[in-house]
Amino acid sequence: MQHGQEGFSRTPVAAPQAARPTLALTVGEPAGIGPEISIRAAWALREQANCVLVGDAAFLALTASLIDPTIRLAALSIQALRNGGLPHFGKERIAVIDVPLAAHVVPGVLDAENGRAVLATLDLALEGIQAGWFDAIVTAPLQKSTINQAGVAFSGHTEYLAEKTGTPRVVMMLAGQPGAGQPCLRVALATTHLPLRAVPDAITREGLAQVLDILQADLRGKFGIAHPRILVAGLNPHAGENGYLGREEIEVIAPSLAAARARGIDARGPYPADTLFQPKYLQDADCVLAMYHDQGLPVLKHATFGRGINVTLGLPLIRTSVDHGTALDLAAQGPGLADCGSMEEAVRAAVGMVAASRTESVQGSN
Amino acid sequence: MQHGQEGFSRTPVAAPQAARPTLALTVGEPAGIGPEISIRAAWALREQANCVLVGDAAFLALTASLIDPTIRLAALSIQALRNGGLPHFGKERIAVIDVPLAAHVVPGVLDAENGRAVLATLDLALEGIQAGWFDAIVTAPLQKSTINQAGVAFSGHTEYLAEKTGTPRVVMMLAGQPGAGQPCLRVALATTHLPLRAVPDAITREGLAQVLDILQADLRGKFGIAHPRILVAGLNPHAGENGYLGREEIEVIAPSLAAARARGIDARGPYPADTLFQPKYLQDADCVLAMYHDQGLPVLKHATFGRGINVTLGLPLIRTSVDHGTALDLAAQGPGLADCGSMEEAVRAAVGMVAASRTESVQGSN
Repeated sequence: MQHGQEGFSRTPVAAPQAARPTLALTVGEPAGIGPEISIRAAWALREQANCVLVGDAAFLALTASLIDPTIRLAALSIQALRNGGLPHFGKERIAVIDVPLAAHVVPGVLDAENGRAVLATLDLALEGIQAGWFDAIVTAPLQKSTINQAGVAFSGHTEYLAEKTGTPRVVMMLAGQPGAGQPCLRVALATTHLPLRAVPDAITREGLAQVLDILQADLRGKFGIAHPRILVAGLNPHAGENGYLGREEIEVIAPSLAAARARGIDARGPYPADTLFQPKYLQDADCVLAMYHDQGLPVLKHATFGRGINVTLGLPLIRTSVDHGTALDLAAQGPGLADCGSMEEAVRAAVGMVAASRTESVQGSN
Repeated sequence: MQHGQEGFSRTPVAAPQAARPTLALTVGEPAGIGPEISIRAAWALREQANCVLVGDAAFLALTASLIDPTIRLAALSIQALRNGGLPHFGKERIAVIDVPLAAHVVPGVLDAENGRAVLATLDLALEGIQAGWFDAIVTAPLQKSTINQAGVAFSGHTEYLAEKTGTPRVVMMLAGQPGAGQPCLRVALATTHLPLRAVPDAITREGLAQVLDILQADLRGKFGIAHPRILVAGLNPHAGENGYLGREEIEVIAPSLAAARARGIDARGPYPADTLFQPKYLQDADCVLAMYHDQGLPVLKHATFGRGINVTLGLPLIRTSVDHGTALDLAAQGPGLADCGSMEEAVRAAVGMVAASRTESVQGSN
């Protein structure tokens, strides 16, 4: 199935620059913890962000009542939204855009009948970015298998958003704060979900060039880092130890980094992965570029204690997400058990990115 | 060159069980920071351990005088040692067994003329283990290239000690304490210094079986853990995601773990590497077994802030080491700049392992 869409563009949000940003929170798989953590994060952070939940309004109202009866939601139909735009609800209520589910939800139990409705929340969020209703999208976890069983080939949020916005390459970055007062740790990946055996051949000069260009552009435009410092890991242990433990560093990575530096990108390395993740090296960097999934993410997830977030770079919009799955087992036990820490961090990160991109736009127009 | 030696055995150390253990500290590459960190660790921890430095006595005396004039050394020739055994110096002096260098040392500058003398310190330490002079060996970093340039094929401390003791397979484990009051993090590796491309084929059922047997035996015998809990990582991201991201988990790792469990080893997994390194999972484990270098060591070195240590498991002796190199650039600036934290931890770990193995021996003889 083709999701490709040409000419994706964002209508600038009309709100004044200092206002709370408006974020679409897609609640993800209804049988998982997504609805709960979305509601709790939206409510907890309503002073910082105008979070708009995108999901089944009746089910969200029921879930909210079980979490905390003082939480107030205000439902809105897609048609009303399209006709009249997003109304201003203030900080007393959380807006819900009603994307009705097809089947009754049993928490913890997947139902392919609801797969297309989950996908519809993403489409609505994208529509809202284009229409200027939303400044950013924050996605709760969904279950890929449910959407696939509903007859739609789907390999993940990231790929779907890339295809719908006509983006040829995106970069997955995970980020989080290791501890109070410590600088944010950001880890981007040159390759993502590949068997380990396929990784070495997937590391190419062209691919690394694209990844570094995206990192440079988005660390500037979405994170407000004027001169991003990027630490790049080697592919092999000890970054190949001068060719004794592999030649990809010499033949692919080092030339690609030299070319990037010639384009003005502060890309340093390739360094041994077990060296560069030491705090004394990280303190002089804004981002680590790991060559593959298990080289970069174990450190990030160890250090951020489940409060890490996932950011998709390279898209023509701001999208953040949690770093965990649907936790069906927890959801099955009823609301109240899930940890919404990562979802709250994803909302905070989106707020920061919206602010940075507004500043960038203003500076860019001077 | 063949270093193999049959019938390696340890003479039990005669000292009473409660006494400070006697450790051989081989000072490593003389032009690096090894001599400095060996002296400082030996002096700082003399209440806990009777550290015996193995290296050039004159050079060590000079180095000690530059670090701290109150440090007292007592030199002993190898011949005197062989004739009369290791004398008791008390806690006021650090014994030095004189293994003379061939050439004058210029800190920071490698000299192949001294390569064989560095190797001789390892031979003396092994001789001392067999003779019962030492309870354990702690090695400061050496420079492989210097020994190779001296005409001796040498691929590392670990391999040399394995060959000299006739040990067919050893396991590299790094360990350290992430923070005050936190449990020790131990990461063992199923493969070590291989190009990433060669890793998948190096993971075999037989190899994993040997590694798990060594882990089980040494976590019991050298760490005093009666029922070691071992968390095992998958090879591929998400541990292969049921075969979608690689089949090694299904075909190799899971069957090997099932067989290990049938032998009484509490080996759990294979788990995704970015999941199992989260603190909530580590707290219920004694050791992580990573499939390869950069899957396991970045977390360890990030978390232990350069205070990690290296332990060789599977040897018929206790050997610990630092987790860093010779730092020639630091050494060139003169004594006083090196961080001896990892060397101190290596000494402390050896002390703990000697105590655990004594307890094990006593229990084993009951």
